[in-house]
Amino acid sequence: MKRAVGIGVDIGGTFTKIAAVDPRGRLLALSEVPTDPQKGPKAFIVRAAEAVRSLEHALGRKGDAVGIGAAGDVDSAGGRLRFAPNLRPFEEFPLRDALSRALRRPATMHNDANSAAWGGFVIELKRGVRNMAAITMGTGIGGGLVLDGRLYEGSTGSAGEIGHMKVFPGGERCGCGSKGCLEAYAGRHAIVRAAERLLAEQPGRKSRLRALPGKLDPREIAEAASAGDALAREVWRGVGHALGLGVIDLVLLLNLDAVLIVGGVARAGALFLGEIERALRESPFRTPCGRVRVRIGRTDNLGALGAGLLSLEGRR
Amino acid sequence: MKRAVGIGVDIGGTFTKIAAVDPRGRLLALSEVPTDPQKGPKAFIVRAAEAVRSLEHALGRKGDAVGIGAAGDVDSAGGRLRFAPNLRPFEEFPLRDALSRALRRPATMHNDANSAAWGGFVIELKRGVRNMAAITMGTGIGGGLVLDGRLYEGSTGSAGEIGHMKVFPGGERCGCGSKGCLEAYAGRHAIVRAAERLLAEQPGRKSRLRALPGKLDPREIAEAASAGDALAREVWRGVGHALGLGVIDLVLLLNLDAVLIVGGVARAGALFLGEIERALRESPFRTPCGRVRVRIGRTDNLGALGAGLLSLEGRR
Repeated sequence: MKRAVGIGVDIGGTFTKIAAVDPRGRLLALSEVPTDPQKGPKAFIVRAAEAVRSLEHALGRKGDAVGIGAAGDVDSAGGRLRFAPNLRPFEEFPLRDALSRALRRPATMHNDANSAAWGGFVIELKRGVRNMAAITMGTGIGGGLVLDGRLYEGSTGSAGEIGHMKVFPGGERCGCGSKGCLEAYAGRHAIVRAAERLLAEQPGRKSRLRALPGKLDPREIAEAASAGDALAREVWRGVGHALGLGVIDLVLLLNLDAVLIVGGVARAGALFLGEIERALRESPFRTPCGRVRVRIGRTDNLGALGAGLLSLEGRR
Repeated sequence: MKRAVGIGVDIGGTFTKIAAVDPRGRLLALSEVPTDPQKGPKAFIVRAAEAVRSLEHALGRKGDAVGIGAAGDVDSAGGRLRFAPNLRPFEEFPLRDALSRALRRPATMHNDANSAAWGGFVIELKRGVRNMAAITMGTGIGGGLVLDGRLYEGSTGSAGEIGHMKVFPGGERCGCGSKGCLEAYAGRHAIVRAAERLLAEQPGRKSRLRALPGKLDPREIAEAASAGDALAREVWRGVGHALGLGVIDLVLLLNLDAVLIVGGVARAGALFLGEIERALRESPFRTPCGRVRVRIGRTDNLGALGAGLLSLEGRR
């Protein structure tokens, strides 16, 4: 029997990534199309289906199922977005069933971070743990949970909002409107803001960040830190401290085997992992905190890969 | 066919409660024996087995299985306590298998808060939700999770340590050794400390708590608040604020249908429930926070009842 192939469609606010994946999570083919949400969901379905067919033509075979991952509050039972600040025109449209009809095959739909968590579980951890959380680090901080070996999505598909757990109640304002969320300390904007603040508050302190033109970005702050810049290193320690608080709460609540940190900003993992591990070492709860392993993910496109893998699980 | 009967044995630091329960959670008989941990685990097993037989004699029938709930870090797969500050002499002793042999029937063993969570799921919520958390309020703050209709215990049986999630990092010192845990704001000692602090800091402020002899306790502070005492009401609002922060984190992470607050101190629920509901109303995450219902449990002895119910689930 031919091995199954899943097609993952990871819908972001700007680009949609399409991946063909085998059941072990190997990437077979990848492409990208603009999402263009303002052109509406029907036009998007036509464009996405076309892109899937092109990818399959290049690959030389069709996928057996298609899985959507989307940024926002996904109704995974109903196959639509309830709330999606970056994909407003798609809200309430039956994306899953429309794509299923356009491609004439079964389709699933989940939140993008939940899809990435499943991708991380299969690809990075080889299904070798029972309970894990993934933290996705990018513009926002997302998350997903695999509990007892299954994707845990909660009662309405909204579980895993790790980025909005309160690490410093009443603290920094978050994009969600609340204060003190993990994302307000470890999201892309928060990292840049922390660096800018240190530079402004300590005008006499040397840092190679001062010489960089334009708006800073996390990659530049990571490069400076890796090159030994003390101010930049302090920024990442702060990121690690906030992540450590979030990870401790996750572990005390869920007694996990592993926490996997993924996404673009996670590439700087070596700069903040130590702080998370210190928080775990210092916890008096030896059994859960001593057991859990924190890892930085090394696979790109986990959202698209995980969405494709979930379509093969036959989940709706 | 006769309905099954489970025997729950809830081992606390001072007393052990024994309950006979039917599969719907109805209490059929209840008794209590001193735990006397210093006399050692073997003597305890003899005493507990004797008490179970007396209870069964009074009830007129034997239980089909026996379930232990115990305060501490329970190895539920191995049927023993790994770490238990109030039951030190019982640590690492195979309590479950010893009681199973003494009573010649199957036995299960879980953490006491996990047992209470299961009891609340069956008895208070009638198994009518998929995902719920129980928060047990007493000397300590414990917790347990029922996810997808099953008790979730994590990788080593240690899940549900809601009382030690950090609500104010770096804040009040907790009995566990960390700072800022929920228990340090909503546990019995924390509630008394908050009242004493307000009384000392505001010596001119009237409060009926000033007239009470000896050390305050949460019941007195609740009575004063119910009678309109503004200072006492402020204490409970603080408890509700801390609980609200914990509940928001639980709901963002786990997208629960219900949070059930149980235990002796939860009887004051009317004094703090409003603060929790306000936190949920104010959250920008409408889908999970709008859905969850927070309830105060009304059943006594949930730990013993839940342990008996879990023995009937045939879990080991």
